[in-house]
Amino acid sequence: MIILSEHEIMKHYSMTEAIRDLEAGLTSMNEGKIDNPHRTVIEYPEQYASILYMPSSDQQERMAGIKTVSIFPENTKVGKSTTQGVLLLTDTRNGEHVCLMNASYLTRLRTGALSGIATKKLSRKDSSVLGVIGTGGMAFEQVLGVLEVRDIEKIIMFNRTREKADRFKEKLLRFGVTQNITVVDNVDEVVLAADIINCATRSLTPVFDGKLLKKGTHINGVGSYLPSMREVDEETILKSDKIVVDDIKGVKEEAGEFIHAANNGHWSFAAIYSELRELLGKACHREGDDEITFFKSVGAAYFDMALAQGVYREAKEKQFGITVTV
Amino acid sequence: MIILSEHEIMKHYSMTEAIRDLEAGLTSMNEGKIDNPHRTVIEYPEQYASILYMPSSDQQERMAGIKTVSIFPENTKVGKSTTQGVLLLTDTRNGEHVCLMNASYLTRLRTGALSGIATKKLSRKDSSVLGVIGTGGMAFEQVLGVLEVRDIEKIIMFNRTREKADRFKEKLLRFGVTQNITVVDNVDEVVLAADIINCATRSLTPVFDGKLLKKGTHINGVGSYLPSMREVDEETILKSDKIVVDDIKGVKEEAGEFIHAANNGHWSFAAIYSELRELLGKACHREGDDEITFFKSVGAAYFDMALAQGVYREAKEKQFGITVTV
Repeated sequence: MIILSEHEIMKHYSMTEAIRDLEAGLTSMNEGKIDNPHRTVIEYPEQYASILYMPSSDQQERMAGIKTVSIFPENTKVGKSTTQGVLLLTDTRNGEHVCLMNASYLTRLRTGALSGIATKKLSRKDSSVLGVIGTGGMAFEQVLGVLEVRDIEKIIMFNRTREKADRFKEKLLRFGVTQNITVVDNVDEVVLAADIINCATRSLTPVFDGKLLKKGTHINGVGSYLPSMREVDEETILKSDKIVVDDIKGVKEEAGEFIHAANNGHWSFAAIYSELRELLGKACHREGDDEITFFKSVGAAYFDMALAQGVYREAKEKQFGITVTV
Repeated sequence: MIILSEHEIMKHYSMTEAIRDLEAGLTSMNEGKIDNPHRTVIEYPEQYASILYMPSSDQQERMAGIKTVSIFPENTKVGKSTTQGVLLLTDTRNGEHVCLMNASYLTRLRTGALSGIATKKLSRKDSSVLGVIGTGGMAFEQVLGVLEVRDIEKIIMFNRTREKADRFKEKLLRFGVTQNITVVDNVDEVVLAADIINCATRSLTPVFDGKLLKKGTHINGVGSYLPSMREVDEETILKSDKIVVDDIKGVKEEAGEFIHAANNGHWSFAAIYSELRELLGKACHREGDDEITFFKSVGAAYFDMALAQGVYREAKEKQFGITVTV
């Protein structure tokens, strides 16, 4: 079995490969070649913690995988990661367990790749200003996903704690991002300037005012992954001409802002335009420059699998990772 | 993370520890400290294969685990194992993934330990002849489980292919078993001689004639783990004074001989005496020398977890295994 650390995966596998492999995975799902059974969640209410077991299987690649993610929010108190993930790959030609890899970067990367693909299919081709609301754990790869598919000239960022946005800017510059980056103190400035808005927060209340949204804006929302969370307001949901989601079942169960709007009776899940995978056949799904489009992502096991297979292929080709007998 | 191979586990962890740790796990279940969610099965019908994902969590030990087992019967054609298992342990104090271990020997050992505990609680204390029907993959540790709890003088064995029984005898002798071992060509000889009968076959039809069963016999059945399988006949089921199972939910869904008897209307699941864990409070549950007792095992994730925790503790104490960064 090959063991792959986060560091090794980061060195050899980036957003370009992630988007390529995720598109292949979405295509396999369209062709009925993916099994994506319900995930199992074990909860630890005293610690507000949970462990998620997310299996899936890909007939096309003849691989099965299970991602195990533990989410322990109180870890911040002791300087540990709140989210710790590993993914086990099994060859379904013979049942052999072939690889165990770190799944933390992988999860962030697949979420960024989903937003990248959605941005390619939905945003205006001439989008040049990327707005970033929330500069926490998931935000970095969200930016990379958008930069991969659109010629962005300017990034304008807001975070509740300004200092964290400044550090995030430094991180992007160190990574080699050459775009002009501005940190602002008022979230309205982001909304008024942006062609594309990335939201990645754990907010329980809307983080921007939908009334300010410009025509033609595309939004990627990856927060609100629990029914109690609500990153985007009802105004934005009702104003959106097209709402596309990564996984309709997951969104119905988890995406707080949609559950809230549906429960209020102002909106219905039937208004969702499609799942992201259904957009793959056509280069662009935008009908006119004025459309407001909204991509909502909550995650599903087969997205992780799609990237994990790509990482495993690279590891075999380029011979990185540690081989152990288990 | 510590990586433990089958070889290392076999070197440091045996039936004595397995029975001790499994009894602790059964006790935790009795105390309501175990989460044992439904397992997820992905099937590969073209290969008659499947992958099982079996999670569980132990509040007592503050550990969660998931066993991933692939069952690929056609592997025998290419000289590979039909069953390949690994188990991932997560520390539920902080969500850290601490150990990945081979789960093949572990699974055989926990099945043997279940039969050992059942034999201790149900068989006659003066049982001296162990009968073995089926000398395949699971049979070895079944023998060790019984030897751990009863003073066996003689082992009498039958297998459909006699040659395999001869090889099995050699394996027991090499392991250091000192009991007198006889291989016979007629299964009736086993049934007529044995105080305790171990069945471990994949048979679709009963492997012995229940009419021949002596009073006072105890039976351990670990085959018939699919509804289509039927290792023990209806006569035996109806003749048993006490039927004890490892996991009632699993038995209702999987144990072929019981499902068959219940569907025929000759027997009902309500006739089951108890789950094995309910026998722990008392040294022995046999009421008289004439009782026929039958222990049926199909397996559950938390049994594997109980042993895996013990193995992990030993690995930390005795410092074996490989430490890797994942």
